[in-house]
Amino acid sequence: MNETLQEQIQFLIEIDKLKTIERKTRIIHGERLENDAEHSWHLAMMALILQSHSNKEVDILKVIKMLLVHDLVEIDAGDTFAYDTVGHADKYDREIKAAHRLFGILPEEQAEELLNLWLEFEAKETHEAQFASSMDRLQPLIHNHQNEGDTWQKYNITSEQVLNRNREIENGSKTLWTYAQQIIQNSVDKGILTKSKS
Amino acid sequence: MNETLQEQIQFLIEIDKLKTIERKTRIIHGERLENDAEHSWHLAMMALILQSHSNKEVDILKVIKMLLVHDLVEIDAGDTFAYDTVGHADKYDREIKAAHRLFGILPEEQAEELLNLWLEFEAKETHEAQFASSMDRLQPLIHNHQNEGDTWQKYNITSEQVLNRNREIENGSKTLWTYAQQIIQNSVDKGILTKSKS
Repeated sequence: MNETLQEQIQFLIEIDKLKTIERKTRIIHGERLENDAEHSWHLAMMALILQSHSNKEVDILKVIKMLLVHDLVEIDAGDTFAYDTVGHADKYDREIKAAHRLFGILPEEQAEELLNLWLEFEAKETHEAQFASSMDRLQPLIHNHQNEGDTWQKYNITSEQVLNRNREIENGSKTLWTYAQQIIQNSVDKGILTKSKS
Repeated sequence: MNETLQEQIQFLIEIDKLKTIERKTRIIHGERLENDAEHSWHLAMMALILQSHSNKEVDILKVIKMLLVHDLVEIDAGDTFAYDTVGHADKYDREIKAAHRLFGILPEEQAEELLNLWLEFEAKETHEAQFASSMDRLQPLIHNHQNEGDTWQKYNITSEQVLNRNREIENGSKTLWTYAQQIIQNSVDKGILTKSKS
């Protein structure tokens, strides 16, 4: 087997680990927590289906590629909960180290492509990164709205925190931010999301 | 919320069920069976990384889209094991019914696009479908090679069956079919895949 293929297969075996990284959000149709691999699939499907709601025209292949790879660094760095301020302090350092190790398994040109995709996603400056990021924010909102506010209640999260955390959806899609605000308000109205800490 | 977005969100909630459809193959880094959603993510990553090994130049966005949606029908039709000849008899009928119900949740134009992607994948006639299909065949081979022949032994599958089942990898990629034959032979040599029924 040539060296290129060998490195590629090694990488594809390594990233199977993403299926073992648990998030804080439950799947909608079941009791268990979602893992990063199925989460990444769901986000790619969301981008495919919701692309017409992007504020700006986007290169949808690039958006989907970003979403497929955006959580790979969590294989080494673990999932940092959205509302964990302590964990967020060194999140980037842990993740950049992981990015270099993981993408570094690949042939050089591909390693560079994936690293750049991940850096672009993290920087949230391009239209593609902003739209991709809005998928990443919107999905757990939908899950929690469907799951009777499961994560919010477990971690005592308020509607103000949810609004602040997810406001950046607007940078990717004004339409989806309007929708997000509706389900946040609906969650407050239904009593599954509180306005203040209990 | 406008009707288009409402239908899209309803579809995106419905397809969360793919995370609950179990395959016969175990994940590589763990003991449990793989589900269809994480499997679909893994195939999309494989296509992204292995595209240069395709026999023919392919539209990689189309390949990835096919792989993201190819198993959605199993939400209704269930996973049919690769070596289950009885299950395969009515597989297409069960799946086409599922495709119409599931994609039918979407706005008409998108329903048609996804149905056509799935039909193209199933027909295995275009270069994109052939390359996508070779990912779908190669992935469980790699898993079983890594997992000491787990599925093969559990279901008493021979190397002849594995070779026959996976020969079509060659239609998508001669290079990857050569690699597949190497890991099949290596599995026989290691005693994790038998030549004849026990």
